[in-house]
Amino acid sequence: MHIRRMSILGVGLLGGSLGLAVRSRISGCRVVGYGHRQSTLDAALQMGAIHEGYAELGRAVRGAEVVVLCTPVGMFAEMLSQIAPHLAPGAIVTDVGSTKRSIVAAAQSHLPPTVHFVASHPMAGSEKRGVHHARAELFQGAVCILTPTSNTDPKAIEQVESLWQTVGMKTCRLSPEEHDRRLADISHLPHALAAALVNLQDEATLTLSGKGFLDLTRIAGGDAGLWRDILIDNRDNLQRSLARLSDEIDKLKALLDPKQAHALEAWLNQAAERRQEMNK
Amino acid sequence: MHIRRMSILGVGLLGGSLGLAVRSRISGCRVVGYGHRQSTLDAALQMGAIHEGYAELGRAVRGAEVVVLCTPVGMFAEMLSQIAPHLAPGAIVTDVGSTKRSIVAAAQSHLPPTVHFVASHPMAGSEKRGVHHARAELFQGAVCILTPTSNTDPKAIEQVESLWQTVGMKTCRLSPEEHDRRLADISHLPHALAAALVNLQDEATLTLSGKGFLDLTRIAGGDAGLWRDILIDNRDNLQRSLARLSDEIDKLKALLDPKQAHALEAWLNQAAERRQEMNK
Repeated sequence: MHIRRMSILGVGLLGGSLGLAVRSRISGCRVVGYGHRQSTLDAALQMGAIHEGYAELGRAVRGAEVVVLCTPVGMFAEMLSQIAPHLAPGAIVTDVGSTKRSIVAAAQSHLPPTVHFVASHPMAGSEKRGVHHARAELFQGAVCILTPTSNTDPKAIEQVESLWQTVGMKTCRLSPEEHDRRLADISHLPHALAAALVNLQDEATLTLSGKGFLDLTRIAGGDAGLWRDILIDNRDNLQRSLARLSDEIDKLKALLDPKQAHALEAWLNQAAERRQEMNK
Repeated sequence: MHIRRMSILGVGLLGGSLGLAVRSRISGCRVVGYGHRQSTLDAALQMGAIHEGYAELGRAVRGAEVVVLCTPVGMFAEMLSQIAPHLAPGAIVTDVGSTKRSIVAAAQSHLPPTVHFVASHPMAGSEKRGVHHARAELFQGAVCILTPTSNTDPKAIEQVESLWQTVGMKTCRLSPEEHDRRLADISHLPHALAAALVNLQDEATLTLSGKGFLDLTRIAGGDAGLWRDILIDNRDNLQRSLARLSDEIDKLKALLDPKQAHALEAWLNQAAERRQEMNK
């Protein structure tokens, strides 16, 4: 894949890792970073995640063939409107956001028709934050979901797919609506539940936690501001996921009757078999 | 610590690991195993987890100074009544069960006054099963909760504490009631939720799972029969934990209103800070 100049807007864990991965895998690509704090830009420069860094959006995107939004979801709309006048004709803009309907709509209203927007969601990351944890291998083997619409330029979609594949990801395509619905179940609901599970414990009980609880709640240690944006942005789907969880819990409550022991075992066994299947 | 003869009833992951740990750390202790399948006993013998193995309970406990029940919780009462006539006077009986009120009551009604029962819950294990996964280091650094009552012999408590400390555990004491109440929150509820989270996904959504979902649901891959027994045995506490979870989820639902963004961030941040504290 050939890119001569790429802008990464937000050089935290994801942006920094993308910079490292691109620099090691796409030869001749100049990687430009944007960050609102100079200390973050300095750290990214020192780690070799970017070649140049700017605290001003217009300068950061000027002349870029590919621009990747790597800030929290809540800042996307404002960012798109700020970069719009500075984008080169033919530039491709993509992102790493965990929700997709809102950014697709924001791109449609803020970006000029001369640039191509292709939404993407690389499902990599961790509960850790900041460029200090960035590493070129972060994306390796994980899935990146692209959510093009009928208006999206086919060649731009292929370019963005090629970018994520170059850094080691498997790509697939979903509509923005289907993405947000499925991610509410498989990612946003689990995150919310992990947080709820931590919050309902009293202090004395927390000291009794074992490895299972620690694994289960690891994601609850993630950035609160980032997740606030995601949960609010996808709240309609999340409310539906929470309602489905309530149904599942009501089913479980009924199965705790000792007369239902066989049915409870079948319910637990269904989960065990599905989960074991995921290890393969 | 000195034990000349120990019986391990049930040589699966926990029993097998205990045998390996005792043999490597208590010199001169003869480790005897009970299993209802000869193939399990053969595997335990071959791994060096036990010195002798029997498929008959009476023979397995004869002459033992310490007897450890390592079968699923649902078999404890029946087992205690079967071993009672064969126990040597002064023998100490303990267990590894995840619930404690029921076994304390069962011991009181089935065991003769000449033997000492001290209930314990070593919080070690994994979603893996069977003696093939056993390892001497399984208990290292984990917590073991003992649940003595006012009737429990103080010297027997110390002996059982010493046993778990010898295999690497930190010990603490709780009443059986407090144990079951706190474990419902920190272990049984999380297990049930992990299973519910797997069961509510549709197949296409499961293919989109990331590392967070895999970590969160790992424990759902555990043995269904074992967990059926635990959840049913502790169902009164689990129902209360599920009710508290519902309250926490209702709180979250209200916080998804964009006007509550600050409060949602505070709720997420509380979880993140508490969870990060647990890594220390």
